[in-house]
Amino acid sequence: MGNRIGKNTIEFQNPPKILEAFSLVGDKEGQGKFSKYFDKIVSDDKMSKNSFEKAECEMFFEIVDNVKRELEKKNKIIDYLIGGDLLNQNITTSFAARELHLPLIGIYSACATMAESLILGSSLIDGGFASTTISATVSHFSSAERQYRTPLEQGSQRPPQAQWTVTGGGALALGNCAESLPKIHFATIGEVIDYGITDTNNMGAAMAPAARSTLVHFFDDTKTYPGDYDLIVTGDLGKFGSDILIELMKDSPYPLEKEKYFDCGAYIYEGSEKLYQGGSGAGCSASVLASYIYKNLLMREVKNVIFVATGALLSTTSSMQGESIPGIAHLVEIEV
Amino acid sequence: MGNRIGKNTIEFQNPPKILEAFSLVGDKEGQGKFSKYFDKIVSDDKMSKNSFEKAECEMFFEIVDNVKRELEKKNKIIDYLIGGDLLNQNITTSFAARELHLPLIGIYSACATMAESLILGSSLIDGGFASTTISATVSHFSSAERQYRTPLEQGSQRPPQAQWTVTGGGALALGNCAESLPKIHFATIGEVIDYGITDTNNMGAAMAPAARSTLVHFFDDTKTYPGDYDLIVTGDLGKFGSDILIELMKDSPYPLEKEKYFDCGAYIYEGSEKLYQGGSGAGCSASVLASYIYKNLLMREVKNVIFVATGALLSTTSSMQGESIPGIAHLVEIEV
Repeated sequence: MGNRIGKNTIEFQNPPKILEAFSLVGDKEGQGKFSKYFDKIVSDDKMSKNSFEKAECEMFFEIVDNVKRELEKKNKIIDYLIGGDLLNQNITTSFAARELHLPLIGIYSACATMAESLILGSSLIDGGFASTTISATVSHFSSAERQYRTPLEQGSQRPPQAQWTVTGGGALALGNCAESLPKIHFATIGEVIDYGITDTNNMGAAMAPAARSTLVHFFDDTKTYPGDYDLIVTGDLGKFGSDILIELMKDSPYPLEKEKYFDCGAYIYEGSEKLYQGGSGAGCSASVLASYIYKNLLMREVKNVIFVATGALLSTTSSMQGESIPGIAHLVEIEV
Repeated sequence: MGNRIGKNTIEFQNPPKILEAFSLVGDKEGQGKFSKYFDKIVSDDKMSKNSFEKAECEMFFEIVDNVKRELEKKNKIIDYLIGGDLLNQNITTSFAARELHLPLIGIYSACATMAESLILGSSLIDGGFASTTISATVSHFSSAERQYRTPLEQGSQRPPQAQWTVTGGGALALGNCAESLPKIHFATIGEVIDYGITDTNNMGAAMAPAARSTLVHFFDDTKTYPGDYDLIVTGDLGKFGSDILIELMKDSPYPLEKEKYFDCGAYIYEGSEKLYQGGSGAGCSASVLASYIYKNLLMREVKNVIFVATGALLSTTSSMQGESIPGIAHLVEIEV
């Protein structure tokens, strides 16, 4: 049973542990900075399917199925699958869930999906409503590109402020166990923040104010400071967006220390070819959390991490109707 | 703090009460069977906006804002807004939330949204993570029609098995209070069920098996029978779909009693012009729950109600790629 602390934050009384994690990414992501941490790197981004949407669905299925099978070996009963994705009407999640035979809590929070999913899973477990849950999300460059931007065949040039949607994702299982595993202690649900950015190629600028809002709520509510954490990670602000966040936080009581902060989007392709601002997509922060961050917590390289997934809540319709891009950020604090 | 009972059902130990409800519908819905129960009937389905999408967003804002203002009069602090809609990337919910300044838990469960939202709200409250939440969803005939089917200007003929997307929606606030108000005692999260229906005009047939699955789980888990409830209501199966459900339930240990069962979609336009199978859309069951059902519970006309919202988890892309239509159904049991 949890406690609300401050205005926007939850403290879990019996923090749910991350029992299992599985990450899968495409070739391009597999050549980047987190290469050696991913559980699976696929070279065929169609996953032997005849459409990118079906490939994305297969990726979702595969990451959840891997976690599910590990849990089943330990005789865990999985109560809920909590997930979402970027395709219209969440079809990736729904169609994958059809084959997984788990009760589904479908969510939508754009690229903030993984954090929202972990918050709901932790609440259901700590509240006694579930014993084990799986949180999952993926994205796919090719399905996202043709849904949100232009046909792939068009080969459009990208502006320098653009990001590249990550092909891949991550699944994490939450539950209780005797082992000393990373656990979710705090959670902050974000508000929708809109500073009026209308450039749909500049998602980082649209989402950075939401990340600031949620981080400030979290520090206010927990009465802690950035220095109290070994690592602060944002989802997919990209290089430009994460620089904006650092600037925005300087104007708060909680300036970020550069050496203890990184953005999954800004880092994921580092070492790979030039990709402007880096990665984006729901699978960006999810795959990094399920690989690099989780493994560093397991190895006690870091003891506590603030994970802030950021989402841009636009659609092609809202942009064509002249709307600006609202952002949202959800946060979990994970410690070991 | 809740209990899981059986395989898929939650029993809330301190059942959250429905503190407030507000329903808003369009002109056509306002002429139907539930006419006198709706809180607001609007004749301008553009809500003075310049697009149907913006009108839908305004409807979402208005129903939540009405509930929010009632709660604020009672000095309630609203912890979370939990909602979703049918437009791509949930823009109705996200853009309305931008003006509402409430932490947002975005969900997607097609027309099963209201039940999923109430289950999450109840879990957060009973688990001690929130004191008051607002659950909301809307749909709009004109925005849905042009997103899912054909341009409105085309004036396509509708086949006899088609339903009509409801313009309108409902918002319900959950929390604790001393008053004797309707409360949510049980909840069942559904699994994705797909019987292979591919006719996108025949949503009722696609969703009925999901409704059956969730109802059977609920009765199994609670060891109760349809006769134990004053009313069993499904979301938007329509006339044809609700007939299918009645047939499917005859093959289970829990046949439905026709006089104590109705489908919101099948009933909402009754008394109005001929609309084939009736209504559909996330706002269909939400507006009926927030009006007719809630008011009947308040007046003790019924003492306990099973509310099963049903969703068809397709997208235009999945259908064009030859996929069948998976369904889902989430259930809450409300009693007074």
